[in-house]
Amino acid sequence: MLTSEARTLLESDALAHLVTLNRDGSPQVSCVWVGLDGDDIVTAHQQRRLKVRNVERDPRVVLSIEASTFNERGLREYLVVHGLARVQEGGARDLLQALARVYMGPDAVFPPPQFQAPGFITRITPQKLGGVGPWAGP
Amino acid sequence: MLTSEARTLLESDALAHLVTLNRDGSPQVSCVWVGLDGDDIVTAHQQRRLKVRNVERDPRVVLSIEASTFNERGLREYLVVHGLARVQEGGARDLLQALARVYMGPDAVFPPPQFQAPGFITRITPQKLGGVGPWAGP
Repeated sequence: MLTSEARTLLESDALAHLVTLNRDGSPQVSCVWVGLDGDDIVTAHQQRRLKVRNVERDPRVVLSIEASTFNERGLREYLVVHGLARVQEGGARDLLQALARVYMGPDAVFPPPQFQAPGFITRITPQKLGGVGPWAGP
Repeated sequence: MLTSEARTLLESDALAHLVTLNRDGSPQVSCVWVGLDGDDIVTAHQQRRLKVRNVERDPRVVLSIEASTFNERGLREYLVVHGLARVQEGGARDLLQALARVYMGPDAVFPPPQFQAPGFITRITPQKLGGVGPWAGP
């Protein structure tokens, strides 16, 4: 499902715009750090915020990520992943620290040591890829 | 509703991740060029694609845009706009040409002259701002 080009972008320091669905069906968007764990996309949360509660109620999510490349028409490429997500308790601290090295820099310490909450991890299993770029269909 | 910082970002060459709702309630995302027309956010479409049909059925949209700035915690700032959208027929060609000067460069010619379809404009009236940055609430 995830092509090598998509995997490279998902493992880069490009932010993911994560869309979840509110109780009334309206969309909610947050920009999040993401990484890969096997074929799943993972993101971490220190608190049980709106997007975590949304995923627990409705697993349908979409995320979009801008690439640094442009297509032959001069349009910026971007990846869209439609997926099904599930929330796991715990593990946020270690995943945030690993992602901080990607997103903030190799020496980053994040979250600060005083934040010891186990938090939550959202795991997204990709169902369909789209967007503009080598990962999109014809 | 739109602060000066939000207006500056909406008038820049930063792509907007536009979320609409599919018939089955699942989210759809496309990256689009946006501009301002008064207090509305506008975007143009050459064809009546999925996101246009989605807005005609359900006006609830969200768009998110990354800023080039970082907050005091070292996190990249981004703007989220929740809005109500409506589709107007025609006008796409002129709006695309105006936006191409912002997104591609001052001398850009877009769409190519052979594309003469009147197309569609989606107008988004902002209802709520969020994200990370000076536009977000406390």
